[in-house]
Amino acid sequence: MKTIDGLKISEKVLSDVKQEVEELETKPVLAIIYTGENAASEIYVNKKIDAAKLVGIKTELIRLPDTTTEDLIQITDALNKRDEITGYIIQLPMLKGIDGEEILANIAPAKDVDGLSPESLGNLWHGNDCLVSATALAVLECLKYFTRYEDGEYSHEELERGDEFLSKSLKGKNVLIINDTLLVGKPLSAIMLRNGATVTIANENTPARELQKFVGRSKIVITATGKHGLINSHMIHEGQILIDVGINKTALGIGGDIDPKGLENMNIWYTPVPNGVGPITVAMLLKNVLNAYKKKYE
Amino acid sequence: MKTIDGLKISEKVLSDVKQEVEELETKPVLAIIYTGENAASEIYVNKKIDAAKLVGIKTELIRLPDTTTEDLIQITDALNKRDEITGYIIQLPMLKGIDGEEILANIAPAKDVDGLSPESLGNLWHGNDCLVSATALAVLECLKYFTRYEDGEYSHEELERGDEFLSKSLKGKNVLIINDTLLVGKPLSAIMLRNGATVTIANENTPARELQKFVGRSKIVITATGKHGLINSHMIHEGQILIDVGINKTALGIGGDIDPKGLENMNIWYTPVPNGVGPITVAMLLKNVLNAYKKKYE
Repeated sequence: MKTIDGLKISEKVLSDVKQEVEELETKPVLAIIYTGENAASEIYVNKKIDAAKLVGIKTELIRLPDTTTEDLIQITDALNKRDEITGYIIQLPMLKGIDGEEILANIAPAKDVDGLSPESLGNLWHGNDCLVSATALAVLECLKYFTRYEDGEYSHEELERGDEFLSKSLKGKNVLIINDTLLVGKPLSAIMLRNGATVTIANENTPARELQKFVGRSKIVITATGKHGLINSHMIHEGQILIDVGINKTALGIGGDIDPKGLENMNIWYTPVPNGVGPITVAMLLKNVLNAYKKKYE
Repeated sequence: MKTIDGLKISEKVLSDVKQEVEELETKPVLAIIYTGENAASEIYVNKKIDAAKLVGIKTELIRLPDTTTEDLIQITDALNKRDEITGYIIQLPMLKGIDGEEILANIAPAKDVDGLSPESLGNLWHGNDCLVSATALAVLECLKYFTRYEDGEYSHEELERGDEFLSKSLKGKNVLIINDTLLVGKPLSAIMLRNGATVTIANENTPARELQKFVGRSKIVITATGKHGLINSHMIHEGQILIDVGINKTALGIGGDIDPKGLENMNIWYTPVPNGVGPITVAMLLKNVLNAYKKKYE
């Protein structure tokens, strides 16, 4: 089993972002709208703020323990207009009772650094240049990493070129995505398709027997279900690439959707949980902020 | 083999639309932008105009044998503004040299009766109310038809309720879509997913051996590749639903992607070509125009 070190990739992305931000005269600003109160959200919001500080991106935290859809429309309207705000996100899940779709549709695409608005997602499916979910981008970073190590001949520059490179490694491959949300399945399937993969999107209705068969037939398996042990070594075969986006509480601490027991001696690539996709996600969000900034002034 | 009569479904949809249009004081108007010159487009455009006439929807044909991206932006700007235009389409393929994505992005979502703008597609993937590709809707009409006949207990009203009904028949089923375009694969996969299906999207890079396996494992196969005979009876098993969106010239006239030879005695549902999905597509376009009209005045 070859595991990837999410912390290392994350550090590399952050250090690249930091270097670019240092050269900017004015600094990008990321606003974070945090509705309600939720221990997990609190942790994620703080991680984002800490990482932003590390790379020199300013943050503005808008804490709304109690709010309404109407208020959030006004707040997002204001953020859309304020020139100094490079981009902003609304930490999910939003407070109960909020019409999330109405809010997401109100995010200006140029500031949509989580890529969650209908227009951003539509542009992604059209193959247009746009901001993309940081989680989806983190998965792609893992794939780039795998591919780099598999075929040692690729340089860092080639990997950076992104799609063109990914396409080489995805074309004609079976990719299974076990998640159909706005953060993972919906953007990732668009990207995989654009790169020539045959994409299967499974969800909670997929019968276990069918899921097992799809796992068996896929070169790349990406899972984000919140079910620890959904995938185990009996379903896996040599040569597969397993990307685990699940974050689950288990008796032994935080674990992913994949139970790594029995995978140790197999010739597979695997992203562990914790320290796999998670830290890269935060780094990709900040890269999105930098990209939104550069796009504005290009 | 149980075939569906696309002409009959089309007539039913058109007669429903006609009845509703008759009750309107002012009539909906569909504008069609036809760029370049192309024998096939000429036929399709005429079919749409004839069907619109039949149901009482007015049409305005904008013929542009030679045009530029800049001109088309101005023309779509004008159509977006003109109050009497209910909706409009740009006949595909657009003239060579036109930046199609720029034009599609300029269509006002409320008038996008082909559902081809990034915003429309993004809304579809978000599960929001929006106009949807008529071809994708035609495929859904076929599925409703199949399901109605399989389970005789469903009334017309239940079928009309749409998603709720489709969801019953799609949840947990394997659906294969062999097409990744804006007209078919990209909207249909969103709809299938929303209804709980496990969706596989294949494309020209999918190896033949893999495609055969995916076909074998799917309850519903939707194909739109332009390759006559891509699917044949050896790949098919009892109980499958085959929806053929392909339109190909063959030695024996127009044929679909599926070679029906050998399917005759199998217990499958099958949409023939011609007279399957094709005529329903035109009817669904007009239903979209009616829906855009009703939405405006609701």
